This record gives sequence, structure tokens and C-alpha cells, in this order.
Amino acid sequence: MSDTFDVIDGGVAAAVGFEAGSGEGGIRYRDRHDVGMIRCDRRASAAGVFTRNLFSAAPIHVCREHLAQTHGFARAVVVNAGNANACTGDPGLAAAREMAAETARLLGIDAREVLVASTGVIGEPLPMGAVRKGITAAAGALGRGGGDQFARSIMTTDTTPKVYAIETSVGGSPLRIGGCCKGAGMIAPNMATMLCFLTTDADIDPALLQILLRQSVARSFNRVSVDGDQSTNDTVLILASGAGPRVESHTSSERQFADALTSVCQELAIRIAHGGEGATKLIEVTVVGGRDDGDAERAARAVAESNLVKTAVYGNDANWGRILCAIGYSGAAFDPYATDLWIEDLQLVRGGMRTDYQEADATALFSRDPLHIRADLHAGSGEATFWTCDLTEGYIQENASYRS
Amino acid sequence: MSDTFDVIDGGVAAAVGFEAGSGEGGIRYRDRHDVGMIRCDRRASAAGVFTRNLFSAAPIHVCREHLAQTHGFARAVVVNAGNANACTGDPGLAAAREMAAETARLLGIDAREVLVASTGVIGEPLPMGAVRKGITAAAGALGRGGGDQFARSIMTTDTTPKVYAIETSVGGSPLRIGGCCKGAGMIAPNMATMLCFLTTDADIDPALLQILLRQSVARSFNRVSVDGDQSTNDTVLILASGAGPRVESHTSSERQFADALTSVCQELAIRIAHGGEGATKLIEVTVVGGRDDGDAERAARAVAESNLVKTAVYGNDANWGRILCAIGYSGAAFDPYATDLWIEDLQLVRGGMRTDYQEADATALFSRDPLHIRADLHAGSGEATFWTCDLTEGYIQENASYRS
Repeated sequence: MSDTFDVIDGGVAAAVGFEAGSGEGGIRYRDRHDVGMIRCDRRASAAGVFTRNLFSAAPIHVCREHLAQTHGFARAVVVNAGNANACTGDPGLAAAREMAAETARLLGIDAREVLVASTGVIGEPLPMGAVRKGITAAAGALGRGGGDQFARSIMTTDTTPKVYAIETSVGGSPLRIGGCCKGAGMIAPNMATMLCFLTTDADIDPALLQILLRQSVARSFNRVSVDGDQSTNDTVLILASGAGPRVESHTSSERQFADALTSVCQELAIRIAHGGEGATKLIEVTVVGGRDDGDAERAARAVAESNLVKTAVYGNDANWGRILCAIGYSGAAFDPYATDLWIEDLQLVRGGMRTDYQEADATALFSRDPLHIRADLHAGSGEATFWTCDLTEGYIQENASYRS
Repeated sequence: MSDTFDVIDGGVAAAVGFEAGSGEGGIRYRDRHDVGMIRCDRRASAAGVFTRNLFSAAPIHVCREHLAQTHGFARAVVVNAGNANACTGDPGLAAAREMAAETARLLGIDAREVLVASTGVIGEPLPMGAVRKGITAAAGALGRGGGDQFARSIMTTDTTPKVYAIETSVGGSPLRIGGCCKGAGMIAPNMATMLCFLTTDADIDPALLQILLRQSVARSFNRVSVDGDQSTNDTVLILASGAGPRVESHTSSERQFADALTSVCQELAIRIAHGGEGATKLIEVTVVGGRDDGDAERAARAVAESNLVKTAVYGNDANWGRILCAIGYSGAAFDPYATDLWIEDLQLVRGGMRTDYQEADATALFSRDPLHIRADLHAGSGEATFWTCDLTEGYIQENASYRS
């Protein structure tokens, strides 16, 4: 379906009505921007999907509160990197509210129209002096060309900014969706340590926007795993300016918008997996023939989350036994003696047993990036794809010393 | 409760009525024993707990079959290392049956009285010539002093043999339980790549033995995680010779035997976690104050299985945010603002927020081996303890090249 989209520049400021910017607050890092801001020139429909972690961070409480108060509208987003403002109690909540209030004051809008996000270390008080300094700088830097700067400002252990935007057409009018995300560790289904900000010029009601965002997240960010850890701060936010074509429920415009949104989310999700901490390659796990989609997802997730599979892929070791083993404990229901498995287009397993492939051929394929693993359970028509990365010494080194 | 037991030598041959031995078959390794055997001098009550992996290995099918045919009796156990005989189809099943038949022939017993286990690489045909050679050598080496040899013969990536035996007293008579296990990777709740063989001289009916074994496994091997991968071959077998005191249901003898059996299983399970691939330290995670024991177990398991927690422990980084984060996504129900957390006896978190501990004190404690992590959820009286190890470059190196 992606052939109906044009990839464009601009990231979160690509859609009509949006500006982005960033500034240096000195929250944790030196000589880099650590506060990002998005502004819409009008009141935008807004929706969000958040972590289910019980220790959800203060900014998530503020986002939920503001979206409820405005019934799904917003004018701006403010984000800081370097401190998650999680496990920080009431002072943390006050700090997140102050981030919104300060942004609102600078932009001349209502604080309830500001959505807030944070990423970084858990459990340390947010240094509000530095955050305020960054907010002021970011507000002063807002512009149509600020999408890339914004993306850089929210990075933590990410090695590259993750920016993507497309233009498509709905009812004959151009429609844009742009976004960026950050996340490299603590990535799991249900969106671990992952922040994603999306903007679009679609003219869409908040309730429909919320439904379609949730659907897209289910098929993208909730199908990415780096290490299986769901973070306290995962957030996906979308703002729709309404400057573009109307998207209505139960019309072709809904399907067109939903397809485009899912496509943007999947592209960004794949970049998270590809940029996973210490990763040398992307792994795409597809399971077909599941009893239903849920069973296919269970099986694909078990493979994607297996440390043994991920280290075997890192070592270019065609150790397919580990893949079958993960499917076998996934909870999916199927006949093991009917299972087929492919790496790329080479069939390694037929009916639960190895084919007569040559080890050298399999080893060569395992060095591919991305690496495609595909299993057919022959138990129904359920399908699912999951994305992950290999597990390397780099992951260990990065996470054994992240705070120092 | 362990102060009522004496630790004794002998491993699986410590209990009255048992001999053990091992031999070199050359299945995969060179210059080491790779087949182990246990013989009981009489018909022993027997019970087993096996992996739930759908790709369960051929020997597991044979064990289930034989235990069903004999209604829970056995005279011998035969085990090979170096090849898991999993995902090997009907030829694999025939090979596992042949292992039993060959052992029975050499020992002059019925093949249905032989239990079989395998560990090693998945998906390759069992080289029966080598296995037969090992079986012959092991049968010739059987003796009362063979427990340590047996334990060595079943090792794969284990760095040390794991042997433990105790003597206790039931109704005034001495009772022995001895065992050994192997397992260092693919370890997860529900007993991944883990083999454990237990013997006892208790006089106990097979049905009660099965119940008590299952209970002990639930509180030991199913509470150990090295990498979260459940293997295709996990097996815990116990044989009871009946040479010692009678153990009867609903009497104090049942409780005494159950406590002793659980204690032996926990000691062996802890040694698996401690000897996890690449591990530098053991981590004991205790959660109290869960809504119920199930919730406490969910929370403890999430911490024990978190790659981020395990790498932080490796790096001596008192990154307690990762521990709370794992509890937060575990699915346990509790109030995050009531959560307390200790490392050893230092409280790091009170009411969901950090205490005023000194970072240097926490860092010093994190270097302890074993490291005790304890959380109180203040949601009820549920408790659970889970054991795991840290995650290191050694794990990656070992598993990226296990087959080569």
C-alpha cells in the first residue's frame, strides 16, 4: 500500500499548520538540545496512547488530564529528554504541570492545550531551572523547518533521529502525516520507553482520531520489541490541524487515512527496532497459519523476545531450533509436526523437522539485514508480524552503564 | 527449615538402593563422558514433571509413555548430553525408545522401566552408534560412588556440576534425598533446558510422589529464570526406592518429606541461576505484600526476567527505576504510591519515591553476590521469591556461537 504515498521532508512540521523547534536546557546532557516543542497555528484535534505501566510518569497523567478537560484538543506539545519524571510523586506532577504552563505562557495559549512528555532516567527530580531554560529556547526556535531539530532533541540512547513524513491524497486533496519517535531500549509491546509525536493536516474529530491512532499503534509500536521492558513513559501523541481534507467515519476517507497513519507508525516502529541498543540488524518475524491473529501474534512475539534467538541472529548462527522452541512455548495452539519455517526464501523446517538445506547457505542468509523469519503453523488463517533486533555485547555495555 | 537436614555426599546415588555411572559415547564432545545412567536395585516409585513446550523432545514422550504403562514405576534412568533429540520426528522417537531398550537389555530389566532424557542441540538426528557406545560404558561404570560422574556427564554449557543431597529423619528413621541438575541457558519458569534427576529412599506411592514433586518444582525450578526461554527438553524425574521410611498422605511424614524435597529442589534451582551462562552473580528477587501469591510471583518474575535489571546488576548500577518499571508492567495489581523497595537492607524506595540513600552505599551493595532485591507492594499478604542471574557479555558470546 505504500506505493500510494510520497515520502516528504519535514517530520512533525511537515503537515500544514505545524511548527517545531528545540532548545538547550542542560537537563542532563551538555552541548545538545534537550527540550522539543511542537505548535499548531490553530486548535488541533488531539489523541494519545500511553503506557500501561502502573508507574506511569507524571507527564502521562497531565496528558490524560488535559485531553479529558479539552475533550481532545491541543495547540502544542512540549518534551524533555534526560529525565523521565517518573517515580517522582507529587513534586513530579507539579513539575509536569509547570512545563505545560510555561509553554502556554510563552505561546499565549491555555495550559490545558499543551501536552507534555518526558524521557530519561527514572526517579530523579526534574531540574525545573534547566527545563524552563530549554522551553524558552525551544519556543524561540519554532519554525516550519524545525522537524529534524525536534527529533534530535528528544533522543536518549538513540543513535539516529527517527523522522518520517508522507503525503497522500484523500478525496482528491493532499493530506500529510509526519512524525518522529525516539526509543532504543526498554522497548516492548505496549510501547516501552518510546515517545512518538505525529501531526497531520487531516480534518478529523478527536474521537475518530483516537480510535484510528489506537488501531495503528496496535499494528506498529505494539509489535516492536527490543528488550521486552515496557517503560514508564511510553507515549504516542497525534495532533490534526484540520487544514487538509475531511476524514469521516465509515467513508473511504477513513480507510485512506487509517492506512496512511498505520504506514507511518510502522515505518517509525521499524526504525526503533533497527536502532535498538547495540543492534547490528533488524529482524522481521512473520507468523502465518495461526489459529487466529492473536495466536499468530503470540508466536511471533515469543520469537522476537527470545534472547537466544536474538543472540543466534547476532552470531549468524542458523540455529532454527531456538526459533521453533520459542514458538513452542508461546502459548499458540498448533500441531508441531505441521510447522514450516523459512529464513528469507530458504525453507529450514518442513513438518517440524529440518529440510536438507546446506548449513553454509543458511549461515549466509543469517547475515542479512534486515533478516526475515517466517513460520507457517498450518492451524488457521491468523497472521502477525513483529519487529526486533539482535542482542549483542553492545546492549550489555550500554545498559550496564546507562546512568554513569 | 534447612537446619533440620544434614548435607551429604553422593548426589543421585546417595539414597539407599541407587547406583550411578557415566560413559563416553562421543556424541558431540571429545574426551568427556556424555551418557549418564542411574539404576535402582528394586522397582522404584517414579514421577516426572516435563516442559510444556509444544515441541517437547522425543525422550519426554517416551517418559510419559513408560510412566503411564508402569503406573509410575521405574528401575533406571538414561541420559545423553550433546543432542536434544528434539524436532527429530518419528526417527527421534525411535531413537529415544532404543536408548531405553538398550539400557534395559544391559541391566536385564523391562524397557518400560527405563526413563530417558536428552539435552543439547535441537533438530539434529541422534547419532545412535555413539549413544549406544556411551550407554554400554555407563552401564559398566555403575556404582554407589557414581553420583558426581553422572552429574558431569549431563553438563552442556554448565560451568560446574550441580549436585546436592541431604539426610533428614522421618518418623525417627533416616531418609535421604539426592539429586543433580544441569542447565545454564534456556532457563525460564516451566523449566527451560533443565534436567534434574532426584532419588530418595522414601517408601512412597507413585501418585503421592507425583503430587509432591509437582509442588516442589512449582516453588523451585519454576521460579528460576536465566533468559526466559522454555526449552523443549526440560525434565525433572524422581525415583523412590522404598528402602527408607514410609511417607503417607495426610500425615506428618508427608509434610517432612515435602519440605525436604522442596529444599533440595530449591538448592539445585538456585545453583542453576547462579551458574547461568555468563553470569557473575545470583539475584534473589522477593516480593511481599502482593494481593495474593500469584500477583507477588508475577511481580518477582517480571523483575527477574528484565534484561534491563539484569544488565544494571551486572554493572553494579543501583538503577532501581528499572526494578519498579518491571513491577509496574508485570500485571500485578497494587498502588504505585505505596511501593517500597530494598537492596539488601538498604531501603531505596518508600511510597514509590526514592529515599535519601547515598548513591555510593547503593553501588557498593549492588556488587554483592548473591544480591537480594525485595519489594513490598502493600496490597495483601502474597509472597514469592524468584532467582535469576545478571546478563553479561559472556551470555552473548556463549549464545552467539553455541553451535560452532
